[in-house]
Amino acid sequence: MGLPLAVTMGEPAGIGGEIALRAWLEHCRDLPGFYLIDDPDRLIRLAGRLGWPIPIRTIKNPAEALTVFGDALPVLPVGRQIRGEPGRPEPEDAPAILGAIEAAVNDVLGRRAAAIVTNPIHKESLYRAGFRHPGHTEYLAELARSDEPPVMMLVCPGLRTVPITIHLALRHAIEALSAVAIVQAGRVTEQALRRDFGIIAPVLAVAGLNPHAGEAGSLGREEIDIIEPALAQLRAGGIDARGPLPPDTMFHARARESYDAALCMYHDQALIPIKTIDFPGGVNVTLGLPFVRTSPEHGTAFPIAGRGEARADSFIAALRLAADMAARRSADR
Amino acid sequence: MGLPLAVTMGEPAGIGGEIALRAWLEHCRDLPGFYLIDDPDRLIRLAGRLGWPIPIRTIKNPAEALTVFGDALPVLPVGRQIRGEPGRPEPEDAPAILGAIEAAVNDVLGRRAAAIVTNPIHKESLYRAGFRHPGHTEYLAELARSDEPPVMMLVCPGLRTVPITIHLALRHAIEALSAVAIVQAGRVTEQALRRDFGIIAPVLAVAGLNPHAGEAGSLGREEIDIIEPALAQLRAGGIDARGPLPPDTMFHARARESYDAALCMYHDQALIPIKTIDFPGGVNVTLGLPFVRTSPEHGTAFPIAGRGEARADSFIAALRLAADMAARRSADR
Repeated sequence: MGLPLAVTMGEPAGIGGEIALRAWLEHCRDLPGFYLIDDPDRLIRLAGRLGWPIPIRTIKNPAEALTVFGDALPVLPVGRQIRGEPGRPEPEDAPAILGAIEAAVNDVLGRRAAAIVTNPIHKESLYRAGFRHPGHTEYLAELARSDEPPVMMLVCPGLRTVPITIHLALRHAIEALSAVAIVQAGRVTEQALRRDFGIIAPVLAVAGLNPHAGEAGSLGREEIDIIEPALAQLRAGGIDARGPLPPDTMFHARARESYDAALCMYHDQALIPIKTIDFPGGVNVTLGLPFVRTSPEHGTAFPIAGRGEARADSFIAALRLAADMAARRSADR
Repeated sequence: MGLPLAVTMGEPAGIGGEIALRAWLEHCRDLPGFYLIDDPDRLIRLAGRLGWPIPIRTIKNPAEALTVFGDALPVLPVGRQIRGEPGRPEPEDAPAILGAIEAAVNDVLGRRAAAIVTNPIHKESLYRAGFRHPGHTEYLAELARSDEPPVMMLVCPGLRTVPITIHLALRHAIEALSAVAIVQAGRVTEQALRRDFGIIAPVLAVAGLNPHAGEAGSLGREEIDIIEPALAQLRAGGIDARGPLPPDTMFHARARESYDAALCMYHDQALIPIKTIDFPGGVNVTLGLPFVRTSPEHGTAFPIAGRGEARADSFIAALRLAADMAARRSADR
C-alpha cells in the first residue's frame, strides 16, 4: 500500500490522454491514486481543447503522486515534447511513447509504483520508428526480463477468459494450438488467480475448439489429440482444470459461476463472451510478469480522439483492478 | 389465427414430454394453444411419475385442440405404443418419432395447424433404426419438398444469429465457407425478417471469420476473398448487409440494436452470444421452409429426463415465437 499506479502515455494521437483526464475529473475522490507519465504541456493543451477544468501538476518523482492526486492530476514528465495531435500520430513521438513504458517499468520494479496501467499504443507508428517487438506486452516482458511468455487475461464482472492464441488468422490459430501452450497458460493463470485475485482453490474451465467440444471426435479431433492431454498434464500438476467444455454453453450466467477462469482456444472465443457481457468495461491483464499490468480493452480510437466522446469505463476498471491485484500481491510478500 | 400449434413428440426417452407437460401446467392460460402428437398412455404415465396433476385428453383431429386446451393437454395419438423410458431410448420407437414429424408436416401443410414446434430427437437411435437424413431439419425439408436448403436461425430477446455452417469441425467450417452459402443464407434470412418477423427494412450484420475481421488481410484473407464478395452480391440484390464486422464487438447491447440479424461464419460464433445472453430461453428457428418451424435450443438431455428438473423456458419461447411468426405469415397471405 501507499504506492501510486503508474499510467503510461500510450499513443498521444489516441484517446489515452483524454480517458485519463476524464477518469481523474469524474472519479478523483474514489479512484486509486495514479500518475501519468506524459508531456504535461500537451495534457494542458488537451484539457483546454476539451474545456475540462483539470489542474495538471508536474511531479518530480512518483512519491509525490498520492499527495497531489486529490487536488490535481499528477504528471511525471516523459522528458520530450509531443508532436502528434488527436487522430494524427507522428513517428517522431515514438521515443517518448516507449520512454513512458520504460519509466513505468523502472518505477514498478524499483518499488516506486504499485502496478502499471498502460494506455493503448499504435504499433504501426512505432514500427515506422524502428520498434522491433511484436507488441506492447512482449516489450514489457523484455523490459521485465521475464523468463516465461506472458499470458493475456480478459476480465469483466463475473468472467475471466484467457485466449491461448491471440492475433492469428483463425486457420493459423487452429494450427498453432498445442498442449504445451495450453499447459503453460493454465499454470500461469492458476498461479495468478491465487496470488493476484485471492482465490484459494482456483477452478479452470478449458474450452473445446470445435462445436460441442468435438462430440467424441465426430466434429474434430483437437479435443482428443491436444486439449485432453493438456488437461491431464494440468491435473497431474495439481490444478483443478475441467473440460474440454462445449464452447457455446460455458459462458452463460450459471455456468460462469462454476469456474474462476476460462482457457479459450482462439481470440474470438475469449473475446466474444467478454464484450457481449460488458463491452465498455472489460479489462486486459498481463499475467506472468514480475509486476501487475492492466490496460483498457480498446485501442487508440483515432476517429474519436480529441472530441471528449471516449468512455473511460475500461480505463477506470483497469485502474481499480490493478490496485486490487497489487495490494494482494504485496500483502503476500 | 384460429389454428393450434402442432408439437412433435421428439425422442420419448428425452425431456420433450415433460417440458410440454410443464409448459401446459404452468402456462395453459397464457400460451398459444397447441396439441402434442404423441402416445397418450405414455404421457399419462409420465405425468403420474412426476406427480403433476395434468388431464391428458386424446383428440381425433387438430380442430379439437383449441377447445380442449384450457382444460386439458390435447394429444393427437401417434398410433403406436412407446417403449422407451426416460433416459433409455429404444430403436423400435423410431417409426413413432418419425411418424409424429410427418403428421405435423401434414397438418401444417393441410392448414390444420398454424406452425410446428419440434421436440429434440436423438439422431443416433434413429440411425440405428434406418433413418438416412443428416438431421431433423433436413428431414423436415424433404417432407416439405423444399427447393432451397433450409437456414437455421437462433433467437433470443434482442439478438438473432444465423450460422452459415453448423455441425462441422472448426477447420472444416473454414474450408466450407463460401460466398454462395453466405448469399443464400442472407437472402433467406432477409425474406424471413420481412415476412415472419414483420421488419419492414431489415439490416443484416455479417461477421468476419478472423480476429478483428482480418485487419485488411493481415489476420486472414477470408474476409477479402469470400465475405466481401458475398456482401457485394447481397447489396446488389437490394439487401442492407453490413460488414464484415469484427466478431468480438458486434454482439454487445448497443451493437445489437443496429441490426436485425447477424450472419455468423461458424457454429460457436453464432451460438456463444445467444447462449451467453440467454441460456435457458434461446429458440431455434428453421427459415426457408413452406411453413413456420421452431424448436427449443437444447437436446434430449437424457441424464435429467423423467426427473421434472428440465426447464421449459426454451420450449415456451419456441411456442410463442412460432405463434407470432405464423400469425404474421398468415396475415400476409
